[in-house]
Parts: sequence; C-alpha cells; structure tokens
Amino acid sequence: MKIYKKIGIIGLGTVGEATLEAIKKHYSLVEKRTSLKIKISKICDIKKEKKNLAYKYSVPFTSNPYEIINDANIDIVVELIGGIEPARTYILDSLKKGKDVVTANKALLSKYGRGIFQVARKLRRNIGFEASVCGAIPLIRSISEGLVGCKVRRLYGILNGTTNYILYRMRRDRIDFKEALKEAQKKGLAERHSELDIKGFDALHKLSILSYLCFGVWPKTDNLYVEGISRISLLDIMYVEELSYVIKLLAIAKKDKERLDLRVHPTLIPSEHPLSGVNSSYNAVWLEAYPAGELLFYGEGAGGIPTSSSVISDIINVSFVKPRFIQERNNIIFTKIGSLFNRYYIRFMAKDCPGVLAKISKILASLDISIASVTQKEREEKKFVPIVMITHEAKEESIHKALSKIDTLSVIKGPSQLIRIEDL
Amino acid sequence: MKIYKKIGIIGLGTVGEATLEAIKKHYSLVEKRTSLKIKISKICDIKKEKKNLAYKYSVPFTSNPYEIINDANIDIVVELIGGIEPARTYILDSLKKGKDVVTANKALLSKYGRGIFQVARKLRRNIGFEASVCGAIPLIRSISEGLVGCKVRRLYGILNGTTNYILYRMRRDRIDFKEALKEAQKKGLAERHSELDIKGFDALHKLSILSYLCFGVWPKTDNLYVEGISRISLLDIMYVEELSYVIKLLAIAKKDKERLDLRVHPTLIPSEHPLSGVNSSYNAVWLEAYPAGELLFYGEGAGGIPTSSSVISDIINVSFVKPRFIQERNNIIFTKIGSLFNRYYIRFMAKDCPGVLAKISKILASLDISIASVTQKEREEKKFVPIVMITHEAKEESIHKALSKIDTLSVIKGPSQLIRIEDL
Repeated sequence: MKIYKKIGIIGLGTVGEATLEAIKKHYSLVEKRTSLKIKISKICDIKKEKKNLAYKYSVPFTSNPYEIINDANIDIVVELIGGIEPARTYILDSLKKGKDVVTANKALLSKYGRGIFQVARKLRRNIGFEASVCGAIPLIRSISEGLVGCKVRRLYGILNGTTNYILYRMRRDRIDFKEALKEAQKKGLAERHSELDIKGFDALHKLSILSYLCFGVWPKTDNLYVEGISRISLLDIMYVEELSYVIKLLAIAKKDKERLDLRVHPTLIPSEHPLSGVNSSYNAVWLEAYPAGELLFYGEGAGGIPTSSSVISDIINVSFVKPRFIQERNNIIFTKIGSLFNRYYIRFMAKDCPGVLAKISKILASLDISIASVTQKEREEKKFVPIVMITHEAKEESIHKALSKIDTLSVIKGPSQLIRIEDL
Repeated sequence: MKIYKKIGIIGLGTVGEATLEAIKKHYSLVEKRTSLKIKISKICDIKKEKKNLAYKYSVPFTSNPYEIINDANIDIVVELIGGIEPARTYILDSLKKGKDVVTANKALLSKYGRGIFQVARKLRRNIGFEASVCGAIPLIRSISEGLVGCKVRRLYGILNGTTNYILYRMRRDRIDFKEALKEAQKKGLAERHSELDIKGFDALHKLSILSYLCFGVWPKTDNLYVEGISRISLLDIMYVEELSYVIKLLAIAKKDKERLDLRVHPTLIPSEHPLSGVNSSYNAVWLEAYPAGELLFYGEGAGGIPTSSSVISDIINVSFVKPRFIQERNNIIFTKIGSLFNRYYIRFMAKDCPGVLAKISKILASLDISIASVTQKEREEKKFVPIVMITHEAKEESIHKALSKIDTLSVIKGPSQLIRIEDL
C-alpha cells in the first residue's frame, strides 16, 4: 500500500542540494522501508545558475517560489532559504494553500515560530523542523516524542559547531581566537554570517526552539542573556585546564516550577563530563529529565549532507502523522541573569607587588563573595601578571559590582575576565 | 479535542510499578501537552501481594491477565512481565483482541519478534517497544523515525548496564571481576538473572532488535557470536590502559552491501572515543549512518523509573500513530566470526627465560600474523610472567589456530587471553 507525496524544494544551498541528491540517488531503500513514494515536482532558487541542478537531477526548475506554493499538486513545501523574509511569507502562504511544510530555519522559528505554529494548528497542517536544531541529530523528535512523558529540568547544549570548533582548535593547538577563527573559515565552518555564530545568537535561536519543545515557551530572545566567545583567550583555556575544566559555549535551560532560566554564554564545565569530550564542530545536548534521567545526544550539527538526513525524516514524518502541537504555557517567569547564583572563574591582570591581593579580596568580601581558590600564574615584579580565582557561589549582580570596582584600581589592568562555572 | 485511551498493565515489577506511579502522579502535564487522557483500567500481577499497589493508586487489581486481555474496553495492553512465556501468548492474544501492545521484553522480541510483528502487521495493530533497548534512551524512535532516511553502516553499542558497571568498577577501583560483580549485586544491578548479563546474551537480544530496526533483519541469535566479560582480568584492564585503550562489552553491527556482521564481545576501543567515557551503568550507542554521519545516544539503560519514560512515550505514540512496520530483508549473508579481519590484544603467561618470544613469534609468523607491539610486563626469572601483544590485522581463524598451538608450549601457561580491537 504505497503513499505518494509530491514535494517542492525552495532554496538550493548546501542543505537543499544535498537533500535533492539524497532523494534522487539513495531514496529507493527508504521507499521500500516506508512505502512512501516521494516525487520532487519542482525545485526553486532565485539564483538562475542553480538551474544546472535541474539538468543534473531531471527535475523542473523555477526561480519563482510561487510556482511551487501555488501548485495544487504539491503536498509538501521544503523551505531551505533561511533568514526571516521572504521565508516567513513563503511558509505562511504554503500553509494557507493546504501544504505541509518542512524547514531548517532556526532564525525564523526563533523569532516567529509562535505565530507560524498557530497558523499551522488552525489549518491543521504539519510543520517539520528537525533540521533547525543540531543538524543531523534527531533531537526534536527525541524530545517531542521520546521524552513526551518527561519533565525536562536542565538542558545544556553545544548547539553551534563553528564556535565549538574554534574553542577546540584553541585548546588543541594552543592558538589564539583570531587564528582559530581563520582555521574555521578555511574549513568552511565560519562564513559571511559568522557574527551570528561567534556572538552566540545562532545558539540562542536554537535554544528558543528547544524551550518551545521542552517547556511550551517561546521566549523573546531579545530579553535573554547571550554572550559570545570572542573574549575567550588562550590564557583562560590553559588556566581552566589546570583546574580540570573545559570552556564550552553552552546554551542553558533550567526549569524550576514557574521559573525558567535561559541563556547562552561561555561556561566552565568539568573535564570529565561527557559534554567536555564533544570536539571539533560536533553538537551535543545533555539533559536531565524526570523520569528518564540523564541523556546525551551527539552528532553533526551542520553541513548539507548530514542535515539532509533530518530534512528527509521530516518529509517522511509529515507524510504519515497527523499534526500534533505542543501546548503553550504563559505563566512563566524568566530568571534575570543578575539574580543568578553561580560559581565564577575570574582572571585579573594585576601588578606583581605586595598588597594587591588584599585590595582585591577586600572588595570581594564587601560584596559577600568568597574565594574558593586563587593562584598567581607568573612572577614578574612591578609588571602585570595574571591572577586566577575561582569563587564559591555568589550572586551575579555582586560579581559585576565587584569587578567594576576592582577594574578601577591602579594595580589592575582591566577589564578582568569573568566566566561562569556549571558543575553539571 | 481530547483522546481517551484505557490501558491495562500486566506485570508490576520495578518498571511496571514505576510506570503506574508516573502515570498516576505526574501525568497531568503530559495530558495537557498531548491532549491524550490515559485511564489505567486494570493492573495485573501473579503475585497477589502486589494488590497493595491497587490500594495505593486506586486501580482495580487482578491476578488473571485475561481479565485485561479479554476486556473489550481496554485499548492498550502494557506487557512488563519479561521472559518468553507466557509473555508471548499474552501479547499475541492481546493483538488478536484488537489491542495495541507496549512491551519492554527484549528476550521475547529477540526470539519471536519476527512472528509477533507479522501478526501485528496483519491485524494492523501497533507495538511499542522503546523500553526493550537502552531503557530511557529514545533510541528505537530515533533510528526508526529520525534516521528513517539513512543507511546505518556501523553501530557499536554499550547495551548492558550491569557489565558496563562491572568493567567500570574494575578499572576505577583496581578490583577483580568477582569483587566488582559483588559491588554490582550490592547496587541492585546484577540480580538472579545476571548470567544473561555477564555472558553477553542480554546485549545480544538488544542487538538483534537493533538489527531489525537498522537493517530489517531478524537474526537467529543462536548463530551469532557472543562472548561475556567473566574472562576479563584486572591485569588486562590495566595493560590496555597503558596502550590508551579501554575494554567495553560491545554489541557490534556492520553492514556492507549484502553482508551483515553482528556480534557481542569485550572489545578494546581507543580511550579518547566518546564510548570510552560511558561509565557506571549507563548505556550508549554510537553509530555511523549515511547521510547523517556519526551519532551518539547516551542515557540510563535500566531501572524502573528511567525505563518508565520509554513505556509512557510508547503508550502515547501507539495512541496517535497508525502502525508502520519495517520492511524485512531476506537476502542477507551473515559474516562468520572466523572470517573477520581484526587487530587483537593477546596476553600470554610465559616463562621468563631466553627463546620464549622466538617460539611464539615463529608460530604467529607461520600463520601470517604480524605483531605491532610486544611488551613483557614483569621480570621474574624462570617464573610465568605476562607478555602483551598487539597484532596488525589478521584473520580470526588464524589467530585461534596460533593460540591453540602456542598454549601447548611448555613455556606457556594457557589459556592465553585474546581480545578484539576496534579502532572506531
């Protein structure tokens, strides 16, 4: 009993082309497995030179997406152009034309997901978005179906491959941020949009989709705390290693009753934790849920070929299942970053002369911050040398107050470095 | 638009009771999330003392499973008694009565899964079996849905928590197998059925279910190679550590065109591989698939509370989706263990006197086995001391021939130790 579905693909970048190739070249096995016959009715890109793909794979090409959206024979629209507009309009128009939609567009879903899902729910259409978070990892499905009976309490994600690769290369090769960024660019990981990666916004987009999945909450990403990795120096990476930590850019979600804590920033995690071993450009999500316990999902976070796996599984999934939507929650209080209690890694550049530590300690003590360990890393009299501190749990607001005071001391060359610690 | 389902639970062991508790105490959130209302109509156990659970959770109790199977009002039968019979009959009778089935029974599915799924397919009933492999990890769903568009090429699984815990404790605490087994028993990990765990059969059962999921092949488990961990000594664990390896009991599946290689045995894997860090009683599966790439899934492999997460997600899933079955393949050739090419770790107990290594090397050379490294671990003249060898790739048959010859030498105290190496 075969099921037939006709699809149109809008956007023939790396993921679009890989999806086209995977379906055209390797789909026969999947067809046997699922009894779903997929026909690619039309492919579309505004770049007319992409028409060569039409010849290569014998598929009609158009540069006008509405030849797909308005085609009454097409069942599923696969949106792979990325960005906010015109992707948003294409998706909404496709839904209104009665089509199911598959998309990899995290920036769009993070900003307008709420409205898009409301339209889909009203029209009873499916939206597949497995490819929007963690590329090839079947994470969306695992959370929304596999963990449907669970309450997620904590989630820590390495959601951006580019920044993970940069931090990995800095640590492995003892190179600084700029050099590692160049290596990432050479490898094709950091592109023209690398600001989104480096500053943490790409991870934040994905975190907001995970927030919807885990908690039924679409956060306003503008209100969330996000900090990128460009401030992380090789010095810090080496010092935390001595303390048995690794620095990762983490997307963090913690839920406690009505309180939800969502943020993205570089974080010290214990080097024996499974997330510490997530190297190169891999992505991973570690989470703790009740009753499932601790879980880790690991895999390729980007790249056309790996991501096409998620696009194809979405095409198959929307073909078979009735739309099911996550119930939204509104009575949520977002934890403000200033009210956090955390342990912190702090690095000062301080003049190597008597009494400096006393001055620093006094300011910290006055703000109720107690020190777990302190090490002066070099000796060079009268010069600025690094002092590394690990604090006990302290209020984030107080730490910032303390640092601004300390940075005004004449014996300190600011700004001092501050990185949060998570003792997973 | 609420959906109502009535379920009956047969078997109130740790998983059964945890499922009951999770539904009765924590289901309201899930109900909001999914619009699925679950009513537990009846619970059943042959042990009459389990009736106390009926009072605790206000659910009708019976000691006769047919009061569930024949109850026309019950939609889903949850089988959690384990073992082959009567579980098989209960499941088949439930399907025939038009019920969907959820089961955690790996031993049964491994042996009779093929026939049970054929009946379910004919009757168009659903079988949920997420809890049968890797407890709380949503692995079945990830492979069958998330990776539905993929060809799995290689899979390595730590599928048994008890043996992983024993090997972990041996390595961490430098204790021998027997002592570590006692620790596992103390922790409630090894029970009366621990032979199934220790000898590798539990992992083999799960591997055969994964073979069905990944390749559409139900193997005859009697024909597959399985080797447990009781022969692994603390000595071996320490020696491989020096060589940057870790010993894990791995379930291995490799597919190359029509050839399928399935086996379970202790294996040396590189200590920097993510699977090496899977400690305590955790389970994990690492796999390589096209186009998804490398993926790792990690979580609790057993225990009532974690496993109840998978049981509940199955109950919800079978309530929503139409039955879909994996197409079976028959034209498969199973790779025989003797025809494998592998690298090997070998440990001889050899008399510390001149000429011994020459004798061993001569035998190995005569069978085309070349040595990558060799170390004598101690010196004690005229006594038996360990010699550790790593071979280059060699045919398994030849290695066994060589070892039986070597073990007859008067300078050797056999049997010598042999462990396969996988350079993931």
